[in-house]
Amino acid sequence: MPGKAMIGTAPSEAVASALLGARVTVTGGLGFIGSSLARRLATLGSDVLVLDSRLPGSGANPFNLHGVTGRVRVETCDIRDEAALRQHLKGCDYLFNLAAQTSHQGSMDDPMLDVDINCRAQLGLVEVCRTASPKVNMVFASTRQIYGRPDYRPVDEKHPIRPVDVNGINKHAGEEFHRLYHEVYGMRCCSLRLTNTYGPRMRIMDARQTFVGIWLRHVIEGRPFEVWGGSQLRDFTFVDDAVNAFLLAAVSDATAGRAFNIGGCDVVSLRRLAELLIEANGGGCFKIREFPAELQRIDIGDYYSDDKLFREVTSWAPRVGLGDGLARSLAYFREHLPQYV
Amino acid sequence: MPGKAMIGTAPSEAVASALLGARVTVTGGLGFIGSSLARRLATLGSDVLVLDSRLPGSGANPFNLHGVTGRVRVETCDIRDEAALRQHLKGCDYLFNLAAQTSHQGSMDDPMLDVDINCRAQLGLVEVCRTASPKVNMVFASTRQIYGRPDYRPVDEKHPIRPVDVNGINKHAGEEFHRLYHEVYGMRCCSLRLTNTYGPRMRIMDARQTFVGIWLRHVIEGRPFEVWGGSQLRDFTFVDDAVNAFLLAAVSDATAGRAFNIGGCDVVSLRRLAELLIEANGGGCFKIREFPAELQRIDIGDYYSDDKLFREVTSWAPRVGLGDGLARSLAYFREHLPQYV
Repeated sequence: MPGKAMIGTAPSEAVASALLGARVTVTGGLGFIGSSLARRLATLGSDVLVLDSRLPGSGANPFNLHGVTGRVRVETCDIRDEAALRQHLKGCDYLFNLAAQTSHQGSMDDPMLDVDINCRAQLGLVEVCRTASPKVNMVFASTRQIYGRPDYRPVDEKHPIRPVDVNGINKHAGEEFHRLYHEVYGMRCCSLRLTNTYGPRMRIMDARQTFVGIWLRHVIEGRPFEVWGGSQLRDFTFVDDAVNAFLLAAVSDATAGRAFNIGGCDVVSLRRLAELLIEANGGGCFKIREFPAELQRIDIGDYYSDDKLFREVTSWAPRVGLGDGLARSLAYFREHLPQYV
Repeated sequence: MPGKAMIGTAPSEAVASALLGARVTVTGGLGFIGSSLARRLATLGSDVLVLDSRLPGSGANPFNLHGVTGRVRVETCDIRDEAALRQHLKGCDYLFNLAAQTSHQGSMDDPMLDVDINCRAQLGLVEVCRTASPKVNMVFASTRQIYGRPDYRPVDEKHPIRPVDVNGINKHAGEEFHRLYHEVYGMRCCSLRLTNTYGPRMRIMDARQTFVGIWLRHVIEGRPFEVWGGSQLRDFTFVDDAVNAFLLAAVSDATAGRAFNIGGCDVVSLRRLAELLIEANGGGCFKIREFPAELQRIDIGDYYSDDKLFREVTSWAPRVGLGDGLARSLAYFREHLPQYV
């Protein structure tokens, strides 16, 4: 079914024409999703500026922009630095706002870092945009974590917001600042509530972004990996599908002031995901381990998204299934492993 | 109907026995509600420590503790200063957390100050308590502002949270940190969502706390005051009733991890409130002015609370009606006007 959403390899006309020559900034642009977005934008002919703090423990990896460095400007800039943001964002047409502290347990271990990056700096950013580039079109990377333990599944946008960790509270506040600046000042801001996103260029040296990263690494290194629990249901978005969602959210007239769930092609248990990974790799093994008690208190249990709203508004649809996506991820990391461990 | 809630002049036994000799801290304790609470706690025989930043533009007024200074320790301490908090809160039994930036328009004019005080510092505070005094019993002063423009009235706690200003987003995040630290760490924290609170010791030099303050001042000074709009419905809590709510919330076993609306005796239009004020004063005049367009975008329209939940859980009830409360306020400020203007 070709249409507006078919922008995987052949970008939709709306996306291509809006972004060709546009001044586009990606915060967190050395990270997993940010760099994937920056690469696509370069291909689309945008004037791309990547801002990244390069903080230790974050997803920042300069190798993520390997091959496009001539077409993407990169500045070391922490989004907590409002003066630097003001300088960089003047005259910006599109802003993809992906800079974040993404670890849930990390937000409990160092809550003040999480509030500074995911909440305070987000307010600083929309405030800078209000004065320095009020016509900018912003897309904020939010998270399914804001819902907490679901009352029902699939989880739609009407589900109560009841975060189970500091990260969820701060990400929700960050999202709310974007909504408010649309409602009060008419700015074009929207939020995408991402679920587990995976693919080439993700952080695989540890589990700070998601457990999928560390699984990929172990499988490639020929070591068994651990599945905590195993029965939890989750959905997974391949990074190219997430990138498409960001592009469509940015160019659509109907997204401003709103927040949308982004899901994926498949809902599977973690045990099934582990099996699929081993199938895609042509071998490997894992062991099931009891879910650690100390993480239980901030665990959300089963989760998968209802992303109908975003599909209706933008004609987006995820297109890369888990088998294919895992195979592509393995191929990428097998080729570039030393750059990621 | 005497009972557990009858703690106006004769404190309930539960409140009196819990607080006698207890180490109690009040943040924002030189302000309007904070000082009223500190005075009552001194009367109840608590060991009271007031922390206040004394920031210009806040409700801090040292005269608010006039007459009880021998029984209340006062330290200048900004809740943004975690090291100072850690020192002051060690071994604290009860913490009434009223330090805040309270102006709605102020939160739009200086959003970073609002996020620092109402959001970031609240996380810092619960985090300090978690390590320095994990058994403390905390009551956080939240606000009806988090609901935004009501879908229905009276507004109960199930109403969607949809703030119309930066202040509402930050206060809600502040409230959420208290809930989370209860759920994850078992700490005893609850929140009271206050509506318009008025009475002796409020800020009357301007409208930063509420328009009621500036009305009181004008009436006492024999000048006409302005009513913006006039048809808006609101409820009003006399400060003694609010103080009772804080005390009952603190000593109840059933409040931890929860948030409660606090309302008042009467729901009136602003025009009717103005008439009641003039009646209570025995004269005066006001003029109706069109609601300013620039404030419209963060105005919440009609609002009044459904506070049944808190009444059920604690047996609290407001007892001071508007006529009586306004008369008591006028009498106080007439006697002490120079200390407040």
